[in-house]
Amino acid sequence: MDHAAGMPINPRVFEAMKPYFTQNYGNPSSSHSFAASAKNALMESRKKVAQLIGAEKPEEVIFTSGGTESNNLALKGAAYRNKKKGNHIITTTIEHISTINICKHLQKQGFEVTYMPVDKQGMVYPQKLEDAITDKTILISVMYANGEIGTIQPIKKIGKIAHENQIHFHVDAVAAAGKIPINVVEENIDLLSISSNDIYGPKGMGALYIKKGTRIQPVSQGGGQEKGLRSGTENIPGIVGIGKAAEIAQEEIIAEGKRLSQLRDKLVKNVLNTIERSHLNGHPTKRLPNNANLRFSYIEGEALILGLDMLGIQVSSGSACTSKTLEPSHVLLAIGLAHEDAHGSLVFTMGKQNSEEDVDYVLEVLPSVVKRLRAMSPLTPKEIR
Amino acid sequence: MDHAAGMPINPRVFEAMKPYFTQNYGNPSSSHSFAASAKNALMESRKKVAQLIGAEKPEEVIFTSGGTESNNLALKGAAYRNKKKGNHIITTTIEHISTINICKHLQKQGFEVTYMPVDKQGMVYPQKLEDAITDKTILISVMYANGEIGTIQPIKKIGKIAHENQIHFHVDAVAAAGKIPINVVEENIDLLSISSNDIYGPKGMGALYIKKGTRIQPVSQGGGQEKGLRSGTENIPGIVGIGKAAEIAQEEIIAEGKRLSQLRDKLVKNVLNTIERSHLNGHPTKRLPNNANLRFSYIEGEALILGLDMLGIQVSSGSACTSKTLEPSHVLLAIGLAHEDAHGSLVFTMGKQNSEEDVDYVLEVLPSVVKRLRAMSPLTPKEIR
Repeated sequence: MDHAAGMPINPRVFEAMKPYFTQNYGNPSSSHSFAASAKNALMESRKKVAQLIGAEKPEEVIFTSGGTESNNLALKGAAYRNKKKGNHIITTTIEHISTINICKHLQKQGFEVTYMPVDKQGMVYPQKLEDAITDKTILISVMYANGEIGTIQPIKKIGKIAHENQIHFHVDAVAAAGKIPINVVEENIDLLSISSNDIYGPKGMGALYIKKGTRIQPVSQGGGQEKGLRSGTENIPGIVGIGKAAEIAQEEIIAEGKRLSQLRDKLVKNVLNTIERSHLNGHPTKRLPNNANLRFSYIEGEALILGLDMLGIQVSSGSACTSKTLEPSHVLLAIGLAHEDAHGSLVFTMGKQNSEEDVDYVLEVLPSVVKRLRAMSPLTPKEIR
Repeated sequence: MDHAAGMPINPRVFEAMKPYFTQNYGNPSSSHSFAASAKNALMESRKKVAQLIGAEKPEEVIFTSGGTESNNLALKGAAYRNKKKGNHIITTTIEHISTINICKHLQKQGFEVTYMPVDKQGMVYPQKLEDAITDKTILISVMYANGEIGTIQPIKKIGKIAHENQIHFHVDAVAAAGKIPINVVEENIDLLSISSNDIYGPKGMGALYIKKGTRIQPVSQGGGQEKGLRSGTENIPGIVGIGKAAEIAQEEIIAEGKRLSQLRDKLVKNVLNTIERSHLNGHPTKRLPNNANLRFSYIEGEALILGLDMLGIQVSSGSACTSKTLEPSHVLLAIGLAHEDAHGSLVFTMGKQNSEEDVDYVLEVLPSVVKRLRAMSPLTPKEIR
């Protein structure tokens, strides 16, 4: 149940990619006939990704090596391209580590960044965000949903504010795309980052939606592929993979979203009912269908992960991108948790592979693992040992 | 015979990657046991790439999304990190378009770049390069071999000069790696770019060798993977692929190099003997074993490509990275060809799939295609129509 860290590729996606590894290995930039199927594949994949996010034109989608690269290109590309208009960027305190680190980098380059706080459920207030706008503001970047605590932001409202103030609006949709419907047109989104692996596509692939007319500049130089915005020979098998993954995600988004949210609700409800001093992090209803972030007082998350791992259950203590640092998640600190509570949190991210049986198994073993760990913890009050 | 533009993945490489797509999809940054095989795969691949280029430590190899990204990271990373020491960079006029465009970008950021001219065979003179060094020089970047004209540079001599002058030395080995032996230690190379697809590995993958102690800074921000130099969830299937490709390349480099150079020599010798006013571009002996760049006076290369394509022979008019612009190759102009001669050039890049039969077939049909096109060209002198 750790689908946020590493996702299995969908077998249908892998089947779609195979011929492009072994047979159709043309370079779309070549002159000869061999290149034509690569060009077609490229355009088909743009279409499929565009459809998943409600983009009007396939050409508005370009391909990158992943969510991190998409965020780098969107944020730095927009910041540098528009710096004559102003140097102020607004984002939030719970963005993905890549957005946070890109913004820190931009601050060193002379940009000013406002990190909007969120409430205890991880929600950004659009009104407060609007109040933070100055005449120097050139970019607003807010994630669609948070992959750790699941909270879905009021993107449409924020998009309206950005649009009315003629400010570029970037949305990191890595955790949300393919899980909940997104419509870049209705939501006034100018730039949107997607990661392939998070929609059961291959790793090392991502996409960036760039609304027609949006002014950004490349952050790397090369042969001028992807309209000069992302140079490098196109990874056609990967591009076919993300396209197929987007197509399948769109087909299944409603039914799978319903199924997963039922599993999640069963998990959350029963854990909160059966385990004392357990809490749900993030928003109770406005959250990703596949995400349950649960907190258990008096327990070290890492110990709990190990205990569950030995029973065959994979979960995470937060974003895999930063879990090697052993620092508590910046997201959990941003929603106001104390260090020890942040450390006692566990992220369940469910996916296609998970069934009700998996949830039942977690519900069967989790209480006793928690009980055993609490018995060992000096912090645990006598009455619940 | 257009292996420079798009290479088929080696079936053994694809077999090695498969389990990492479908079964071992762990994230090496996760905490649980599932992540261990990903971590191992990462280290094994570093080892294999390190061995191919004679690097002492696997940790000196980091993975990127391709040759273009490796060049961006090496050049900008070294330039920005060392700008307090100086702002002068030396490269050549025949580098890959990514290096040229990165250098142009750096010039806009206040760096000074010297583009060393090459001789008619595409050779850089180490002595002239040394003369260009100033006390502001912080970086020398010279490609190992040119993918278009095949010329192999005197890298060891240039490395010695860079080393003696305490200047970082970057080598773009995209066209050379896996085709001719490279030894980063003996050749005093600090930074070396590799592309996976050019060694029959998967697209969308590359590597950068960074000699221990070399000062470079990241060019993108994120979760801090690859020692903070290349953020983004590791593309484990791709990493396994480039590792396996490097392993196979090392096994076969001597025998395959010999086989290909014999095919190339047969092709070149017979073309020059049978087709009037045909010429070999690049160095006659110091050239990549798989490369033959042939020039046919009075002919448009694009027409020749089309003619051969209809007969089932794929060739290129130059770098696929720029062939869509229809500008003549900057490499051919740099070796002193007139525009019309550059346009009349054809690149044959042979690979594993090519046999002596393929060469015989080219030798069978090429003369008549050339003859027909020359008959149509108003430039052709009467005597050779």
